[in-house]
Amino acid sequence: VLRTFKLTVAYDGTEFAGWQVQPHQQSIQGLLELAVYQTTNQSVRVIGSGRTDAGVHAIAQVASLTLSQWNHSAESLGRAINAKLPETIVVKEVVDAPQDFHAIRDAIGKRYRYQLQVGGQRDVFEFPFRWRLHGHIDLDRMAEAAALFVGQHDFAGFQATGAERTSTVRNVRACELIVQSTSTSEATHVAIEVEADGFLYNMVRNIVGTLVEVGRGKHSPQWVSELLVAGNRDLAGPTAPAHGLFLLRVDYLPFVS
Amino acid sequence: VLRTFKLTVAYDGTEFAGWQVQPHQQSIQGLLELAVYQTTNQSVRVIGSGRTDAGVHAIAQVASLTLSQWNHSAESLGRAINAKLPETIVVKEVVDAPQDFHAIRDAIGKRYRYQLQVGGQRDVFEFPFRWRLHGHIDLDRMAEAAALFVGQHDFAGFQATGAERTSTVRNVRACELIVQSTSTSEATHVAIEVEADGFLYNMVRNIVGTLVEVGRGKHSPQWVSELLVAGNRDLAGPTAPAHGLFLLRVDYLPFVS
Repeated sequence: VLRTFKLTVAYDGTEFAGWQVQPHQQSIQGLLELAVYQTTNQSVRVIGSGRTDAGVHAIAQVASLTLSQWNHSAESLGRAINAKLPETIVVKEVVDAPQDFHAIRDAIGKRYRYQLQVGGQRDVFEFPFRWRLHGHIDLDRMAEAAALFVGQHDFAGFQATGAERTSTVRNVRACELIVQSTSTSEATHVAIEVEADGFLYNMVRNIVGTLVEVGRGKHSPQWVSELLVAGNRDLAGPTAPAHGLFLLRVDYLPFVS
Repeated sequence: VLRTFKLTVAYDGTEFAGWQVQPHQQSIQGLLELAVYQTTNQSVRVIGSGRTDAGVHAIAQVASLTLSQWNHSAESLGRAINAKLPETIVVKEVVDAPQDFHAIRDAIGKRYRYQLQVGGQRDVFEFPFRWRLHGHIDLDRMAEAAALFVGQHDFAGFQATGAERTSTVRNVRACELIVQSTSTSEATHVAIEVEADGFLYNMVRNIVGTLVEVGRGKHSPQWVSELLVAGNRDLAGPTAPAHGLFLLRVDYLPFVS
């Protein structure tokens, strides 16, 4: 009898080639599938809500998988998989899901966080988790620009060149600049959180790269509105580096497990 | 003309073979000496206040070095060295010191922090920085036992077997259990901070291993007093793993730089 599970997974993406299985490289998906195989002797696909690139982290990625046989609790499947995973990946929760639950198709929203360090010295403990910005950054201007992303827009200008999606319209529900802390006398820790019904490839990193250009004073906050209308990737800011990005949450309609 | 400098250095010890230069391995001392050489063309010894083992981190290790020529500011020496160091090591400060300043000999005290995670799941972001303890731990008993280390004692029972020191008497000025946060519903982050005029090899890790035995209920807090009198390493708790340990601070008498 087939049994489908919903997994919530956290990982430090630093040492991995990203979510997706890659030949001759360590991926989160590949290591999860190996752990499932070692636990259940079943070779199945673990479907993530979306790929994360090399260096991108997750606080709560969601994945689905279907086993032809598992006679124990969903919780004990999680414990067994965790015993086979490296310390940088953890299955935080496993629950039974409807048999047709699908982590990509059923996702109704996601939230990402991008972490910045503004000013200050190299921080040896934070460097895999923050993009460090040098020079003057105006956080008020960045916050003003961030708010302009909220709403339903065509994000064609903010997807990776070469990516092909039928529709590039997305509904951004939140785009917020959060001052997390002033960790030392000089450095400020800042996060940009973006929530939407869905994301195009590299969309958050392109939004962040654009906001940083505004923070540096190269463009006014209103530039964001112009870019959304223009829909041309070449006009927007650079793609922010992968290592500052965290997948915070993936939302689904509730189901009775 | 000879010029001596005092360096304050932070590092994530995870990927290194420890402070001390080792053949065919990456050490913090070795990488600092290489960076000094690349900056000044002078091959000199960088003297740390003490060795830290592989996996041990530092918030503010102190080192001294003497150059036969440097015509710029101490600050610019720090910037130049940082440009040659990996992201996991940073020179936080460089100041001119008296020519006979010596980071080991002149140290008058040190403070270490040992980080624990009590209960909860694997935390992919904290695992290189905390010893995760399973099962029930009584923090009140641990705090009670920790306080018994304070004062002047013979710590022969808490140094690594095989280590040879002329005197094993040390003055512990503080030994405190600090609840840092309850990061999730299940896990508690705890730190044990120990300050003394000097430390024997593995002393903090042996103190922590002993306190954990008390926390687990295997011994009463009074056991600490017995161990201090007995002076036998075989009787105390196991050595806690290296990766939870941070060198927080090294103290010196003030000098006019």
